[in-house]
Amino acid sequence: MTAHESARRADVNVAAKSLVDRLKANPDRYRVGVSTHASGATIIDAGIAVPGGLEAGRIISEICLGGLGTVTLRATNDFKRWQWNVDVHTGDPVTACLGSQYAGWSLSHGKGKDGFMALGSGPARAMGSKEELFKELGYRTPAGDTVMVLEVDKIPPVEIVEKVTSYCGITPAQLTFVLTPTSSLAGGVQVVARVLEVALHKVHELKFPLEAVVDGAGSAPVPPPHPDFIKAMGRTNDSILFGGQVHLYVDADDEAAQALVGKLPSNASKDFGKPFAKVFKEYNYDFYQIDPLLFSPARCSVTSVKSGKTYHAGELREDLLDLSFGP
Amino acid sequence: MTAHESARRADVNVAAKSLVDRLKANPDRYRVGVSTHASGATIIDAGIAVPGGLEAGRIISEICLGGLGTVTLRATNDFKRWQWNVDVHTGDPVTACLGSQYAGWSLSHGKGKDGFMALGSGPARAMGSKEELFKELGYRTPAGDTVMVLEVDKIPPVEIVEKVTSYCGITPAQLTFVLTPTSSLAGGVQVVARVLEVALHKVHELKFPLEAVVDGAGSAPVPPPHPDFIKAMGRTNDSILFGGQVHLYVDADDEAAQALVGKLPSNASKDFGKPFAKVFKEYNYDFYQIDPLLFSPARCSVTSVKSGKTYHAGELREDLLDLSFGP
Amino acid sequence: MTAHESARRADVNVAAKSLVDRLKANPDRYRVGVSTHASGATIIDAGIAVPGGLEAGRIISEICLGGLGTVTLRATNDFKRWQWNVDVHTGDPVTACLGSQYAGWSLSHGKGKDGFMALGSGPARAMGSKEELFKELGYRTPAGDTVMVLEVDKIPPVEIVEKVTSYCGITPAQLTFVLTPTSSLAGGVQVVARVLEVALHKVHELKFPLEAVVDGAGSAPVPPPHPDFIKAMGRTNDSILFGGQVHLYVDADDEAAQALVGKLPSNASKDFGKPFAKVFKEYNYDFYQIDPLLFSPARCSVTSVKSGKTYHAGELREDLLDLSFGP
Repeated sequence: MTAHESARRADVNVAAKSLVDRLKANPDRYRVGVSTHASGATIIDAGIAVPGGLEAGRIISEICLGGLGTVTLRATNDFKRWQWNVDVHTGDPVTACLGSQYAGWSLSHGKGKDGFMALGSGPARAMGSKEELFKELGYRTPAGDTVMVLEVDKIPPVEIVEKVTSYCGITPAQLTFVLTPTSSLAGGVQVVARVLEVALHKVHELKFPLEAVVDGAGSAPVPPPHPDFIKAMGRTNDSILFGGQVHLYVDADDEAAQALVGKLPSNASKDFGKPFAKVFKEYNYDFYQIDPLLFSPARCSVTSVKSGKTYHAGELREDLLDLSFGP
Repeated sequence: MTAHESARRADVNVAAKSLVDRLKANPDRYRVGVSTHASGATIIDAGIAVPGGLEAGRIISEICLGGLGTVTLRATNDFKRWQWNVDVHTGDPVTACLGSQYAGWSLSHGKGKDGFMALGSGPARAMGSKEELFKELGYRTPAGDTVMVLEVDKIPPVEIVEKVTSYCGITPAQLTFVLTPTSSLAGGVQVVARVLEVALHKVHELKFPLEAVVDGAGSAPVPPPHPDFIKAMGRTNDSILFGGQVHLYVDADDEAAQALVGKLPSNASKDFGKPFAKVFKEYNYDFYQIDPLLFSPARCSVTSVKSGKTYHAGELREDLLDLSFGP
Repeated sequence: MTAHESARRADVNVAAKSLVDRLKANPDRYRVGVSTHASGATIIDAGIAVPGGLEAGRIISEICLGGLGTVTLRATNDFKRWQWNVDVHTGDPVTACLGSQYAGWSLSHGKGKDGFMALGSGPARAMGSKEELFKELGYRTPAGDTVMVLEVDKIPPVEIVEKVTSYCGITPAQLTFVLTPTSSLAGGVQVVARVLEVALHKVHELKFPLEAVVDGAGSAPVPPPHPDFIKAMGRTNDSILFGGQVHLYVDADDEAAQALVGKLPSNASKDFGKPFAKVFKEYNYDFYQIDPLLFSPARCSVTSVKSGKTYHAGELREDLLDLSFGP
């Protein structure tokens, strides 16, 4: 990635601002809670003390994408039982998905029951995260108003605000946290809207050059929420693993495109084949024992824009989706 | 429903205003007619002396939802002959659908051929309607600019304007009527965009507590218009009865969710099984003899957010849809 | 078409302006290049020296429709291999599609390798094109800021700017050219977003009165781009010929509606049945030997709003689409 290319990327913090402002100005319309944190930061609650909902989740998904993407709720009959899908595309997938949406900023304070732990996602990462990924992307945004999305069910402590603002070089008044519990409707939508990001993250894990990804778009079913955290998380993952689909367009030759698609779908992983909550339990809830290559869409297509050829792998697995979502 | 919850609801009249203004500012773009009524009210004609069309109908559907919902026209191959569906979701379904969209304000003046009769829907209901439903909802909006949608093919008389403005406590200049004949394209779209509202109305009829409805979304095919009023109305109903689908998320236990979904779809009614125009005729065009529980989507899913379980009932009936829509 | 009806049409140049401004203000967000031509005109490059992409193509498609239409990217499983469709509908199809989107303004300068040749489309046509079609439409827009879309892979020479500005009666500073190479992702999207326009153009070729077309909407799959111009162009055509669908609503009697739909789909042409690139080659790349009636959607429905009857013809041909798009 040349300096020129890096310079040409939109600022995800600037682009997401109008979406954050829309939630702040209309808490009733989107059934979210807007309050000021003890630290001075703004908290947007999308499912703890308020109902939130599908539309709040849709807007938060677009915030996660740094204001560079479009997330649409769409009815479908592709699955006999699950009527709604989330469609995702962006003007610049690598910047939107990896430079913003990926939940890559690990935040924790305290330990045990009173501890707080979350993986931060959204535009604030581009401003302050120390992830290696940003060096590879050659992408940073200047200090200013920012927003971070946290998949949590409690308010973050002051120390978390201090860490984020310090890394970003901003005051608490410039920071907004959006909170989406895994068990909430908004939480479910914003996770499965990561279907394209999950594919791009795996592309990166597979050492395929990100600068060769020209474009892409994805879709995944809306999971029914579950009150149990593990099962709720399992369903959001399974939505992508069993019901997700992605089409990538790459500036690479045929061999590279074909090799990529062969490894890309979830069924290329040794841990594929049962609901995620079960896989997680079998590894004694040790996330790091799970094959990292499991996290990817069920059905993938990769087009080489160099040759015009398209390669396909994986398939939608309604049977496994029903096992995960269904009673 | 507590006072607190009621207080947290968005004002459908405020939220719908920009959509009404868009039609007023662009009559050519949406092929609607904008004029001033003898009373001083504004009339937006979407299919009497002007073509109107699908897009006008889509915007009017969002006006009906009090500016709180999204209505999307979407191509589909779910039905072999009917290519377009209307997808509907909102940030707050009970407020949008029952507090605004439901055609619950009965308006009439005069009798026989010269008489005017209509069921008013849209944001004006929340401002001035005397329906019992608003007491149950605990929802009202203050006097101000407002809009009412009427499924009629003639201009309402001055007396109707006087009734609505008097109940709303406003001047005629603050009132806009949107007119969508049943036989028009815009009329067809705005009726079938009620697919979620119809489900919520039946939820209410079944005495299921509305405050337990957390969220929902629905879809229905766009019916081909028919010049005959009865057949046009029949097709809009049949779109929902045979081709409509809804997913509701409820804060209720499994027994309640399962009992609800069992009664929810149209095929749970004794009058289900033939095109609506035929049912209507067999009851000698006496609307009140028809089973009120007939009016509901073909296919329903209900998720209990308490347990995470989802229950399904009903099915899409393309055969009956073809009977209603077909030549 | 009466003068009154003509007067009621929206100005496509006024309506498209905010979309053009969005691209100009956010070149990074949409990965387009914005520069000033030697002539003083603005050039928006959507795929020559920059990546462009699906979303840039979507916005350019709405510019082509003169700001009067909605173009949506939608995931689908209707085709086993091609995951994304473009859905198109407008507030006023004849004005949007034929008065603006149709690529009817032939522009050329010089000859051979150094020559420039393109078919201009978009709002500038309504301002300055000398096509006969505008007399029939009875539609013109006044001089002012305008935009023309060119499906080319090089910058137009000064003489082309001079011709367009002279015909439009404007200065170069008032003109924007949007360039979408056929081989680019944006180019592919903006061509297949012509699925409804292609149907309306054939309606016109078949001498069916345009003023009888009340409304319509269409959809077509997003083709994988191909580096070879002929193959890229072939795929964009085949997307519509084999995967395109359109529903038209006409104010005509049953005989006229049925006769129209019988001739409308691509399979009614003698040249139907193989990928377009092959047809083109068999005619020795002489475009004018190809049956002009080949250019139309695969699957068509026509509803007579006079009788309420709908007629259907044609069918989606996934097998032929796979032949064209596939490796």
